[in-house]
Amino acid sequence: MAFNINEHQHVRYNPLKDEWVVVSPHRALRPWSGQVETAPTEEVPQFDPKNPLCPGVKRTSGKVTPMYESTYVFTNDFPALLEEGPEPEDSGDPLFQMKAAKGTCRVICYHPHSNVYFSNLSLKEVVCVVHEWINQYVELGKKYSWVQIFENRGAMMGCSNPHPHCQIWASSFLPNEPRIKDKNLREYFKKHKRPMLIDYVEKELLKKERVVYENEEWVVVVPFWAVWPFETMVLPKRQVKRFNDLDCKQIEKLAQTLQVIVAKYDNIFKCNFPYSMGWHGAPTGEHLKENQDHWTFHGMYYPPLLRSATVKKFMVGYELLAQSQRDLSAEKAAAVIRDQPEKRFA
Amino acid sequence: MAFNINEHQHVRYNPLKDEWVVVSPHRALRPWSGQVETAPTEEVPQFDPKNPLCPGVKRTSGKVTPMYESTYVFTNDFPALLEEGPEPEDSGDPLFQMKAAKGTCRVICYHPHSNVYFSNLSLKEVVCVVHEWINQYVELGKKYSWVQIFENRGAMMGCSNPHPHCQIWASSFLPNEPRIKDKNLREYFKKHKRPMLIDYVEKELLKKERVVYENEEWVVVVPFWAVWPFETMVLPKRQVKRFNDLDCKQIEKLAQTLQVIVAKYDNIFKCNFPYSMGWHGAPTGEHLKENQDHWTFHGMYYPPLLRSATVKKFMVGYELLAQSQRDLSAEKAAAVIRDQPEKRFA
Ligand SMILES: O=P(O)(O)O[C@H]1O[C@H](CO)[C@@H](O)[C@H](O)[C@H]1O
Ligand SMILES: O=P(O)(O)O[C@H]1O[C@H](CO)[C@@H](O)[C@H](O)[C@H]1O
Repeated sequence: MAFNINEHQHVRYNPLKDEWVVVSPHRALRPWSGQVETAPTEEVPQFDPKNPLCPGVKRTSGKVTPMYESTYVFTNDFPALLEEGPEPEDSGDPLFQMKAAKGTCRVICYHPHSNVYFSNLSLKEVVCVVHEWINQYVELGKKYSWVQIFENRGAMMGCSNPHPHCQIWASSFLPNEPRIKDKNLREYFKKHKRPMLIDYVEKELLKKERVVYENEEWVVVVPFWAVWPFETMVLPKRQVKRFNDLDCKQIEKLAQTLQVIVAKYDNIFKCNFPYSMGWHGAPTGEHLKENQDHWTFHGMYYPPLLRSATVKKFMVGYELLAQSQRDLSAEKAAAVIRDQPEKRFA
Repeated sequence: MAFNINEHQHVRYNPLKDEWVVVSPHRALRPWSGQVETAPTEEVPQFDPKNPLCPGVKRTSGKVTPMYESTYVFTNDFPALLEEGPEPEDSGDPLFQMKAAKGTCRVICYHPHSNVYFSNLSLKEVVCVVHEWINQYVELGKKYSWVQIFENRGAMMGCSNPHPHCQIWASSFLPNEPRIKDKNLREYFKKHKRPMLIDYVEKELLKKERVVYENEEWVVVVPFWAVWPFETMVLPKRQVKRFNDLDCKQIEKLAQTLQVIVAKYDNIFKCNFPYSMGWHGAPTGEHLKENQDHWTFHGMYYPPLLRSATVKKFMVGYELLAQSQRDLSAEKAAAVIRDQPEKRFA
């Protein structure tokens, strides 16, 4: 029998993480009798006087959210990282290492209305969101080594507020994920004299089988090494190292890309497709002075749903203790996303 | 202000994974208005004629589960890994690497009754479970490089059947987690001429602040670098490399340890505490012939609950894109577990 990527088990390599994923397409048809989630389709009013992210509402901290009209940014009332604080001493023991961590956590509201999202905001409004991301990135990047912009969408992803918003956690340290990526991107660049992700995007554009959307500036693919069932990566066609390296054309086309990808996601299971998403670019702070030619700015979507609006992929025992595993091949997932309309179902 | 490990933010190093975790104890008191889970307290009948893991019941595959009286092992009807199958060809491209994966997936029922678990099985019955783990490990370890024994407990952890059981996924490859551990354990051994985890357990026994239980042979600690709120590690006091290196005394005392730790977990929020757990020891298959003195056999529990039987820690945006983060310090979590009675609430 000939090997068929959509039918036969194999492992695939993630060159960004130096990790493998088990692909078991033959398992996609197993029946599911486990936990089902609440379908994420909740209707939200435009304004909710109890929602602290709405204009004019008082937050738990006692502060009042102002009457904002575009995006609105504030410091998280319960930040995981604080700007100052006492620092631990070095234990001198390799098994008990602790270090100081400084940082700040902010919330970005995308829009004053609670009932809007990428797929029903105007292109101009999405461009405003991208500009706010860039502003924040530049401001926080002056001080901090890493500025992680991310969004948890939906209660299934631990999001506790339906108002359209994302978060930024900026830190004095380079977190694990970007640290490992930095190492692997750097080694690839040394060896091949080209940014890995630019090589990657060019090859994916030729192969086509994992591309779900493209426009003049951006390509969305289900990465060859995807772990989450409908995971995607947003990659630029022209090399850019950081969020603030994007020019006007790239920004506008990125806004369009975001509108399309979110609409496609929502169309798969006719729901508000839950996910965590975020952006990675070259490190900041003290790293702004270093050569970062190996870095390519990119976005990632990690959505948990697998079979329906209520059945997710559980990353549990084997995944936590041994290795990530997926049932659906990346190519099949890409075909499903590609085939969705670019406008969200009404 | 002096640094206080239970109050002030810091990062801690995991020498097994070469990774850091953000600890934000100041954040433990933030209010939670996000998703709550169903409390895992379900009552299960001793026998359910519809449950395929009960003796005498027909499974989806058409096979009938026999009238077993102790443990019962069978090959998963929907295995993620198959023993045979066509193999992918080498693409020759570093960005599109695929390899063959072979393996097998088995299910171990702990007992014929559905309404029992470690805390209400007799010590002898738990000893039987440990012996079955060892038998399986030895048998599959002859052929496969890695034998991952693991249990997903509770619907919240993707477990779809309440009958007491665990799984084994054995593979022709060394998965990511043990591969990275192997590397770090080996480097430590080279440098310090001692198994890392034996050094670690001795130091934890002196420090005491993270020890939640100990008997003559075993120690349970919340590891210094714990990621999950109530994560624990089960470590031997005497160096053993693999499951099958345990002697009778260690086996009996391990059974007792398992009974205590599960009872303590269940007592925290008065529920069937969900978790994924599993065992790591030196690799098998072709690695049986290699020197593995750097390896120490150990167990891990990864429970998701944070604040109550219904509020879990979400490992989402920041955790997936940047770095694991916890609110509760490992030392506070250890105190909570340590203070629980060793018998489960009735
Ligand atoms: O094989 P099960 O119990 O049906 O499946 C469960 O455990 C597996 C191993 O951790 C995971 O891959 C699945 O996502 C999870 O639902
Ligand atoms: O800050 P939030 O949205 O309340 O919290 C959510 O996102 C954080 C960052 O990924 C996680 O640490 C929390 O577990 C999750 O519930």
